[in-house]
Amino acid sequence: MSRWEPNARGRLEQAALELYVERGFDQTTVAEIATRAGLTERTFFRHFADKREVLFGGAPLLQESLVSAVAGAPGSAAPIDAIAEALEAVGFFFEERRDSVRQRQTVIAANAELRERELIKLASLASAMAEALRGRGVTDPAAGLAAEAGIAVFRIAFERWIDDTDRRDLADHIRESLEELKAVTAGR
Amino acid sequence: MSRWEPNARGRLEQAALELYVERGFDQTTVAEIATRAGLTERTFFRHFADKREVLFGGAPLLQESLVSAVAGAPGSAAPIDAIAEALEAVGFFFEERRDSVRQRQTVIAANAELRERELIKLASLASAMAEALRGRGVTDPAAGLAAEAGIAVFRIAFERWIDDTDRRDLADHIRESLEELKAVTAGR
Repeated sequence: MSRWEPNARGRLEQAALELYVERGFDQTTVAEIATRAGLTERTFFRHFADKREVLFGGAPLLQESLVSAVAGAPGSAAPIDAIAEALEAVGFFFEERRDSVRQRQTVIAANAELRERELIKLASLASAMAEALRGRGVTDPAAGLAAEAGIAVFRIAFERWIDDTDRRDLADHIRESLEELKAVTAGR
Repeated sequence: MSRWEPNARGRLEQAALELYVERGFDQTTVAEIATRAGLTERTFFRHFADKREVLFGGAPLLQESLVSAVAGAPGSAAPIDAIAEALEAVGFFFEERRDSVRQRQTVIAANAELRERELIKLASLASAMAEALRGRGVTDPAAGLAAEAGIAVFRIAFERWIDDTDRRDLADHIRESLEELKAVTAGR
């Protein structure tokens, strides 16, 4: 008895985020998530391998988008500009889901293991972007440094975007943080 | 029956690193480490909480050294220069133990869990240095960006130092990588 459930994945994600915020990640069970979403545990496991995948299931798509944006930047773009363009491009990915991104961030900030997982995700994104730069003919250490600097910019921009009561775009924050990094590394 | 063992900690560390390289971290037991060092398991546990602490026990001292170097940099130093000075200063910490640092790196590179632990350590160092910059009156986001950029520079410099057949100093590699980061962020 399986039937098509409209937007089951989205409903499960929303239910999970609400419960993680309310009770904490460790205290929430898959059964509770399914109940809150009005679905079954079986449906949950058709969409997610486990509770954690609700929070990290988007990472492969994010990485793929970043890598293809780096690869597709104009041939004349400097490495840091290719990275910045890629980060701004995925800004929309977060922009349209601002409220759930914010909930997700609250959940992660409250749990040491999830914070570690998030760090590892960001390090993987940096490695993938460095590799994409190498594919453009950028040599090391420039490729690694541009990618790591890009992730530092992204982290700072992301935090400011999350806290921004003026609701400015993430892409704006990324451009601004990159300018700040340029000033900082120039010793200003 | 406890007696003083000359340089027990150093002997245990060296025995552990050798075994981790030879057999892998997961395949090595504390009993084997103690035997190789000619000591007892009890002596091992007087010096280290577990096998992993042999690899990460130096982190608090490293962090303390970085933080006090950032705090003690000349008042006129720009944030990135205070960070760079701190990183160069701890270079000696690695320099005099080049061979065991290199063994340690081989062990960590071969084990996913240890790589994650190392990432987390580096992120903690970045947070601690950012906090030390704030203590110097540096505001955000400059404090966070300078510290994160510093850690990116350190990682790249460290890798190049590990692989450097000319055995140039880590401090040289740090200065060089910082120059490269400046060039990269300037869009060159």
